[in-house]
Amino acid sequence: MKIKKRTAIAAIVFILLLLATTAMAGDPNGSGTYTDDVAGVKLATNFAWTLVAAFLVFFMQAGFAFLGAGALRVKNTVNYFTKSYMDFSIGALTYWAVGFALMFGGSKLYSGLDAGNSIIGWSGWFLTGDAYDVSTLMFWMFQVVFAATAATIVAGACAERMKLQAYLIYSGIVTAIIYAIYGHWVWGGGWLATLPYGVGVRDFAGSGVVHAIGGFVALAGIYLLGPRIGKFNKDGTPNVIPGHDVPMIVMGTFFLFFGWFGFNPGSTLAATDLRISVIAVNTFLAGAAGAVLVCYYTFIKTGKVDIALTCNGALAGLVGITAPCAYVPTWAAVVIGLISGFIVMYGIRFNDWVLKVDDPVGAVAVHGYNGLWGLLAVGIFADGTYGDVSGLIVGNTSQIIAQVIDMVVVAVWAFGTGYILFSIIKRIVGLRVSAEEELEGLDIGEHGYSAYPEFVIPAPEDGLRAELVGAPEGANQGVKT
Amino acid sequence: MKIKKRTAIAAIVFILLLLATTAMAGDPNGSGTYTDDVAGVKLATNFAWTLVAAFLVFFMQAGFAFLGAGALRVKNTVNYFTKSYMDFSIGALTYWAVGFALMFGGSKLYSGLDAGNSIIGWSGWFLTGDAYDVSTLMFWMFQVVFAATAATIVAGACAERMKLQAYLIYSGIVTAIIYAIYGHWVWGGGWLATLPYGVGVRDFAGSGVVHAIGGFVALAGIYLLGPRIGKFNKDGTPNVIPGHDVPMIVMGTFFLFFGWFGFNPGSTLAATDLRISVIAVNTFLAGAAGAVLVCYYTFIKTGKVDIALTCNGALAGLVGITAPCAYVPTWAAVVIGLISGFIVMYGIRFNDWVLKVDDPVGAVAVHGYNGLWGLLAVGIFADGTYGDVSGLIVGNTSQIIAQVIDMVVVAVWAFGTGYILFSIIKRIVGLRVSAEEELEGLDIGEHGYSAYPEFVIPAPEDGLRAELVGAPEGANQGVKT
Amino acid sequence: MKIKKRTAIAAIVFILLLLATTAMAGDPNGSGTYTDDVAGVKLATNFAWTLVAAFLVFFMQAGFAFLGAGALRVKNTVNYFTKSYMDFSIGALTYWAVGFALMFGGSKLYSGLDAGNSIIGWSGWFLTGDAYDVSTLMFWMFQVVFAATAATIVAGACAERMKLQAYLIYSGIVTAIIYAIYGHWVWGGGWLATLPYGVGVRDFAGSGVVHAIGGFVALAGIYLLGPRIGKFNKDGTPNVIPGHDVPMIVMGTFFLFFGWFGFNPGSTLAATDLRISVIAVNTFLAGAAGAVLVCYYTFIKTGKVDIALTCNGALAGLVGITAPCAYVPTWAAVVIGLISGFIVMYGIRFNDWVLKVDDPVGAVAVHGYNGLWGLLAVGIFADGTYGDVSGLIVGNTSQIIAQVIDMVVVAVWAFGTGYILFSIIKRIVGLRVSAEEELEGLDIGEHGYSAYPEFVIPAPEDGLRAELVGAPEGANQGVKT
Repeated sequence: MKIKKRTAIAAIVFILLLLATTAMAGDPNGSGTYTDDVAGVKLATNFAWTLVAAFLVFFMQAGFAFLGAGALRVKNTVNYFTKSYMDFSIGALTYWAVGFALMFGGSKLYSGLDAGNSIIGWSGWFLTGDAYDVSTLMFWMFQVVFAATAATIVAGACAERMKLQAYLIYSGIVTAIIYAIYGHWVWGGGWLATLPYGVGVRDFAGSGVVHAIGGFVALAGIYLLGPRIGKFNKDGTPNVIPGHDVPMIVMGTFFLFFGWFGFNPGSTLAATDLRISVIAVNTFLAGAAGAVLVCYYTFIKTGKVDIALTCNGALAGLVGITAPCAYVPTWAAVVIGLISGFIVMYGIRFNDWVLKVDDPVGAVAVHGYNGLWGLLAVGIFADGTYGDVSGLIVGNTSQIIAQVIDMVVVAVWAFGTGYILFSIIKRIVGLRVSAEEELEGLDIGEHGYSAYPEFVIPAPEDGLRAELVGAPEGANQGVKT
Repeated sequence: MKIKKRTAIAAIVFILLLLATTAMAGDPNGSGTYTDDVAGVKLATNFAWTLVAAFLVFFMQAGFAFLGAGALRVKNTVNYFTKSYMDFSIGALTYWAVGFALMFGGSKLYSGLDAGNSIIGWSGWFLTGDAYDVSTLMFWMFQVVFAATAATIVAGACAERMKLQAYLIYSGIVTAIIYAIYGHWVWGGGWLATLPYGVGVRDFAGSGVVHAIGGFVALAGIYLLGPRIGKFNKDGTPNVIPGHDVPMIVMGTFFLFFGWFGFNPGSTLAATDLRISVIAVNTFLAGAAGAVLVCYYTFIKTGKVDIALTCNGALAGLVGITAPCAYVPTWAAVVIGLISGFIVMYGIRFNDWVLKVDDPVGAVAVHGYNGLWGLLAVGIFADGTYGDVSGLIVGNTSQIIAQVIDMVVVAVWAFGTGYILFSIIKRIVGLRVSAEEELEGLDIGEHGYSAYPEFVIPAPEDGLRAELVGAPEGANQGVKT
Repeated sequence: MKIKKRTAIAAIVFILLLLATTAMAGDPNGSGTYTDDVAGVKLATNFAWTLVAAFLVFFMQAGFAFLGAGALRVKNTVNYFTKSYMDFSIGALTYWAVGFALMFGGSKLYSGLDAGNSIIGWSGWFLTGDAYDVSTLMFWMFQVVFAATAATIVAGACAERMKLQAYLIYSGIVTAIIYAIYGHWVWGGGWLATLPYGVGVRDFAGSGVVHAIGGFVALAGIYLLGPRIGKFNKDGTPNVIPGHDVPMIVMGTFFLFFGWFGFNPGSTLAATDLRISVIAVNTFLAGAAGAVLVCYYTFIKTGKVDIALTCNGALAGLVGITAPCAYVPTWAAVVIGLISGFIVMYGIRFNDWVLKVDDPVGAVAVHGYNGLWGLLAVGIFADGTYGDVSGLIVGNTSQIIAQVIDMVVVAVWAFGTGYILFSIIKRIVGLRVSAEEELEGLDIGEHGYSAYPEFVIPAPEDGLRAELVGAPEGANQGVKT
């Protein structure tokens, strides 16, 4: 153990010395980039816009944490917050070291990003050398919060049974590799962006790059993990396991919605691209439409309004509009949001009844299925007013081909690499806590304390404990591999 | 039922087709608006400023939800959050379809807003046609979050007894019509803005347009609804019904305060109007002064500090400064905030003891009475340094006449139309849940689940249930109409 | 009492009349500052950047409130929120009246700030006269939220036993005087900024000015207050007293992290200084590194992850990077964050075991010790690419001398003046509530209600009450003076 530690420290020191001594050719203070004229002020305006948008996207981390924890049981609250908090911290470091270079190397978008090809990037490591540049770092700041968003989507789906260490290893790797490589194909000038259909794949703010990646990696995770004890009855029918705090769910949704105004409009990287206003409006309308659809659909069906599901409707609308937000008119944003509302409801049902996987927060339906929908919606509703992207509504049948290809690619890539990653982690440290720990809650087992020590909260019912005995074989160990 | 549904779907499809085929003459991508020179960068700076401000105002929705829910009982938490969440979602759609056109049609402020007169606007429907324009949408984005703010003020006042569906119908209509028409008179170039006193009515960021509208519609609502069971004793004296979560109250206030920095300074729609700094400072000082006044006033009177009331003091100061924020010096902002603190305390007392209406969160006093105070304060404290608006302190006795007229108009309009609207809703779907449901809490009745299912929370006391029997006739049905 | 009140009102009226009649020579509406050309748009861009950053810093107040309350016991929740809310309200007024003038008078940075010397400022009172100017107010808005941050740091350290009124008096005075005078020395053109070592003391965003001031005033406070009943055993060994709400702790940390993106990058006061991107990235990386270090360090040591301590690790990294954020490359930000993580862990241990002071939230370690570390880090890691600041890594041994002097000055000044201030307050109104009130919780004693009246929360154990009898003499009264 001691040797390991020393080796680790020595390695870190070595890397840092290496970084410290790297020659610089970028512009680290802006003196070569900023000029005191119109061009300079334009640049500054766009820096400010992009950075403020990045800060809003960062805030989405708070939204994911609050929302997810509210939708889970009280006994796993500390654990979920730990995962939610640590994934962006770890991801920031791995994206700084590796992910950004894989994703944008070769894009030549900014200083220090020259090396790379259409499959993978290969420059910008550790933001050092030429990449120590004000423009490159402005861009990194915006990108890292997107990477963190993709990673944290998985936390909720795998909650209440995945080991903390398994999750933390996952989060570092997904940010550095799985997310980054696919992102390179679409945003880093890779092969999907240049497909010979329409103008190539277009995914404006990441319905695919961020949300579908997160959603389908999550699907692989919950497939391998298996359902929580008590989620499915012996006849295979699913039970609803309610969360512990509705205010957290709704407030988390508000926070996410707020952050989305950085996510989508910020993706222009420029306030001088005045389309930002259309993007903001489309984002708002799609989120609103998704919520309205789910609210009234469930009300008409059941006579009651399920606010937790309605919040997922809002998020579904936001995911659905994320790819097309810049390309469609406002009425299309409303239609996209309404359809997203349907997709999330039936997506959750599909997971529960057909795939029989257990996704405690509905992340696969919200981010995965609606991520695909967003990619498709570009091919349908793009009206040709922006970026030369035209869909079916203006008679273009070519763009949608690129989008469909992308839908297949992102689902296969995310599910496939996610499956491999979680399989490896399973072999090394194991994916799932013991059934005993799951029943007791992960807070005590992995953290040694509970979230609300002074409140009276009855222990999980013995019923569940009894059920464990009669649980279908393998139910608490995930699929056999 | 089936026929109704089909008709509805057919109608929606028809509208969408109509929208899709409308000719466009606006500038939907900014290529005709943005120019790559000083004028273009100025425009971009102001776009960025206005949109970021709009996002902050959106965040106020989260503040209203958190604050209000904390001030209510645990048994109505899911219901209140549902109302708070859905009102902005529904309002966004109705304001997109109808409200914006009624409010700014005829203002000629941006593309597509030509038709309209000084009483009502008549163009910009669905943001389609000429209104599909980057500038118009930038403006819409800022305006819709204001409309949503006005609507959500009512949620807290009518909480714990209004039917969910009644509230949702209200929220769509108030945003589309009541708010929009009055807003037209002041901000859309209508007759109040051009009154021949001073420079006409001035309400910089909406003490009247947003807050007084919300507050006086709320007053009509709670008058028609009647008080909650247990609010008033048989002798007519009011009881205090404490909320269930003080952290939510204070955090909600923080969130609102934060969002107010978009609300007031953003209302310049331009960062190139450097008065934004004065507006921000005045906003901060008035909010601080309102809190300090209430904190020490109650401390001196009672020896204790009531933080919930103090938070209302802060909000009162913010509402009070909203109209005059751009026109007054910093010392006046402090005075306005201090007086706002008095108004909210005595306003709540007035509602409790004189009007004998039941406003669980103090919304009428905070937004209604202080909204009027803000309008008046313009006529008193405007120092003539901005927008040619001068009040009594610099010897101008004319501006205050316009402001007083506006105070009367807004109170009468909001209360009157609110009364009519709620009366109609009452006839159609009913305003109030049954006494049984009220006692049990609206969460179970309207949603089927409670907010914190794992915590031990004793059922509402039987005392209240007993009181129901002896309640004064009509007490649980609102005023007889 | 009545006479006092009248005198107070008369004094206020007199001051206000004075303010109202002061001649103005500033530019209160920007017409003399803004020009419709490149220079004007540049100014507007920088106004917008600085104000938005100020709003984000304001939001940190919400973070401090949430985080601190979560880390405390349920019985003191209302009290802590009251302190957290009122300190910025009171501080805003005292900083408006006095603090800003003491801090920036003589700096000549903006209109109305002429009088002052290198020890103390003496102009800009009440933002009146020449200081009623758009640029001066823009600057005030940014500065006041920093002052509020320094003040609120103390709330957590002194929580659960300090009298509300003692705290409120403290908060007004620290903002107006202690913070302001030291701030003048570093940011107001005072003697530390012009020390003849390196380029003089550099503290970019306030590791020293804000965090070390708050941290060491807090240390004086908890030294004089004494530990909470039950914190230390008779043999002097410390006990862990867990907080009551882990979600609040983590969410508060998210909020603070979010606000820090205004704190550090905003401190350029200009988006045209493109170094803002480097600052943002450094801030993110240091915060992430601090969390990762604490998370894995405790995991390796104990097999569990302590998320509350990990959050303090994140904040420690953020405090540590606050002074050097503009001067160091990204790899150094990671190193600074990692070291901050160590410092906060060992700092807490040092306070518990060596100083034997009781800091319920770890504020002294997070803000005090890491504030000093941030100042030192400038002298070590500054790479000379910005502001001519060079540290040891590029072979400059002179800058670090200025930084070390500053470390001593800030610690001595804050602890010394804090000690004097709290000693005076102790004599006048007393610092500490009675042991009875402490055991019962301050919510009932100082506010008359509890934070969660409907939840079942068992009373504090009788064990603690018993312990009171056997407590070491003076333990509940603080150090004898």
